[in-house]
Amino acid sequence: MHEKVYRVELGARSYDIHIEPDSLPRLGRAMRALLPDAERCLVVSNETVAPLYLEQLEASLREGGWHSTACILPDGEQFKTLRTWSKILDALMEARIARNEPIVALGGGVIGDMAGFAAACYRRGIPFVQVPTTLLAQVDSSVGGKTGINHEHGKNMIGAFYQPRLVWIDPLMLRTLDARQVRAGLAEVIKYGLIRDAAFFDWLDAHMPDALQLDAMVVSELIHESCRHKAEVVMADETEQGMRALLNLGHTFGHAIEAMTAYRRYLHGEAVALGLLMAARMSAQMGYADAAIEARICACLKRASLPTEVPAFPAERWLDAMGHDKKNIGTQIRFVLLKRIGQAFISADVRAQDVRRLIDSYRRA
Amino acid sequence: MHEKVYRVELGARSYDIHIEPDSLPRLGRAMRALLPDAERCLVVSNETVAPLYLEQLEASLREGGWHSTACILPDGEQFKTLRTWSKILDALMEARIARNEPIVALGGGVIGDMAGFAAACYRRGIPFVQVPTTLLAQVDSSVGGKTGINHEHGKNMIGAFYQPRLVWIDPLMLRTLDARQVRAGLAEVIKYGLIRDAAFFDWLDAHMPDALQLDAMVVSELIHESCRHKAEVVMADETEQGMRALLNLGHTFGHAIEAMTAYRRYLHGEAVALGLLMAARMSAQMGYADAAIEARICACLKRASLPTEVPAFPAERWLDAMGHDKKNIGTQIRFVLLKRIGQAFISADVRAQDVRRLIDSYRRA
Repeated sequence: MHEKVYRVELGARSYDIHIEPDSLPRLGRAMRALLPDAERCLVVSNETVAPLYLEQLEASLREGGWHSTACILPDGEQFKTLRTWSKILDALMEARIARNEPIVALGGGVIGDMAGFAAACYRRGIPFVQVPTTLLAQVDSSVGGKTGINHEHGKNMIGAFYQPRLVWIDPLMLRTLDARQVRAGLAEVIKYGLIRDAAFFDWLDAHMPDALQLDAMVVSELIHESCRHKAEVVMADETEQGMRALLNLGHTFGHAIEAMTAYRRYLHGEAVALGLLMAARMSAQMGYADAAIEARICACLKRASLPTEVPAFPAERWLDAMGHDKKNIGTQIRFVLLKRIGQAFISADVRAQDVRRLIDSYRRA
Repeated sequence: MHEKVYRVELGARSYDIHIEPDSLPRLGRAMRALLPDAERCLVVSNETVAPLYLEQLEASLREGGWHSTACILPDGEQFKTLRTWSKILDALMEARIARNEPIVALGGGVIGDMAGFAAACYRRGIPFVQVPTTLLAQVDSSVGGKTGINHEHGKNMIGAFYQPRLVWIDPLMLRTLDARQVRAGLAEVIKYGLIRDAAFFDWLDAHMPDALQLDAMVVSELIHESCRHKAEVVMADETEQGMRALLNLGHTFGHAIEAMTAYRRYLHGEAVALGLLMAARMSAQMGYADAAIEARICACLKRASLPTEVPAFPAERWLDAMGHDKKNIGTQIRFVLLKRIGQAFISADVRAQDVRRLIDSYRRA
């Protein structure tokens, strides 16, 4: 029921995104069809997800004829480090995973990013299957091939563009997800509407109560539309030479918020929600968008019970935190701004004084 | 004088190999022409090479309008680790190198491999310039985009295929190179002749005394021919799906020798020389080549003053050391064998018993 397959076309690196409720039991056989000659695989997961789904995944893998080993990592963005990543490499060596044998990432964005980066680097690249278990990972991070880890001084500073061989999304897995995590995922879904699809934004805004309650039809639809938007952008610009940067709407501010709060106070999606509001206000302040845009977005975020209060920090701390953001070119900070809901653009015209004015406007409020 | 440029054609990842004596002073301007918008660069070198060439390189970079910072690492294969690699990442963060700004690798294969892997991963990929200072790096490791580091349990197990934007070879730099390092580099040059060019093997064999004395004409010619052979193979099979594996002739044994001797007793090229002999003997034992091939190769290696005595270890240690070699597919070990001088092939037919017979033949000798 409700099986949806979206094909990401990237030449030799093309792959399917398979979206279907209760599909985890069929993953092992799907992987077998994709990789007929491999024997072993390494499952990478974390201490939160493994107790919920590892057994079911392992049964599915056995049914596909796989000999699997598990590498269970601690849960949390603060563990997205070189040190944790090296444990995956150790586990790959230990299990003697060969060059044609896959890693299966079972978890949210942190697990997917780290496991994908390990797949990119182990033996200079082995196959990689994403089984995203959070809404954020299902609508965003599992698609598109951005993998990596954080550096002490910057988020996702170390990584690779490395596409998965398969993304396997089972929306029923969201039933065990914390409500706060569901809301955080919705921030990225709202983002797609803001960047390139006003009708989707309106639909989402209207269906927010159903989305929050994980209504199967609404959730499947919003996952599919999000994956389609993400994939269309990635297919046009795989390595972010240009338009892929649009997907960073809200992220330059969001990453700064995460960095300034040591990745502890906000979930990534919550920080992005605040970043979306800041991008909207800056767009209005610089004359690119109508001032009403901020209130419209704020209302939608509130319907999703996402935070809308931008935290107070001195402007110089914001600038410093954004100066380390990896989307900079030289000393210039590139921002993604809005012309209207459904139309984002990349601006190279934002100066430090524009950021200061924006920050000051929150302190006066 | 003697300027030779070889173009490696890899679509969007194409680059020039520039071979010219006394060309280091012009590198900065060549890099400027290639990367007109970048401001800064990070030079990665080691404690042996930096005192000899860093000042000259920095002057050249200044002349090209570059603001450079240096990251000087300890010298040696034993430092080709995750820990040392992370120091390059720290230096890139510290210098705030942007996504369009390059790393310049000044050193031998270890520096080139580690700096290249850092370039591949920092901000998911920044430009990378190779300035190889050893013969081995000039004829082999600086070309082709294999980058990486060693794992405690296996050589080059962690890495990426990542092409440089420019390879800048100044054969005069070899004058400060230890004679033993020159000989080690010649092992890889001999390898090209064995794999695919009998006439080049004969020419090299005849000119070995000139090569050892670094005769400018002979050295430029052998570097150019080696780069051409390497590049032709890489262009046909960039990510080693098939024929690129031919370049591993002598390396499955060579890596095992290095691993069993803790990377201390032999230089990489010396271990490869021994590996070439072992591949030749195995080819004869399995009936693929004439028995005389081993003596012919041995004579050439002796003219290059390379080691020809295969060290004694129990067969099981050899098998275990080779089981971790990264060119394995599953539990099968793939070997590169010879039909004759100038013609190598990939065999999937070698079994553990063939390896045992080979090892036993050295113990009886």
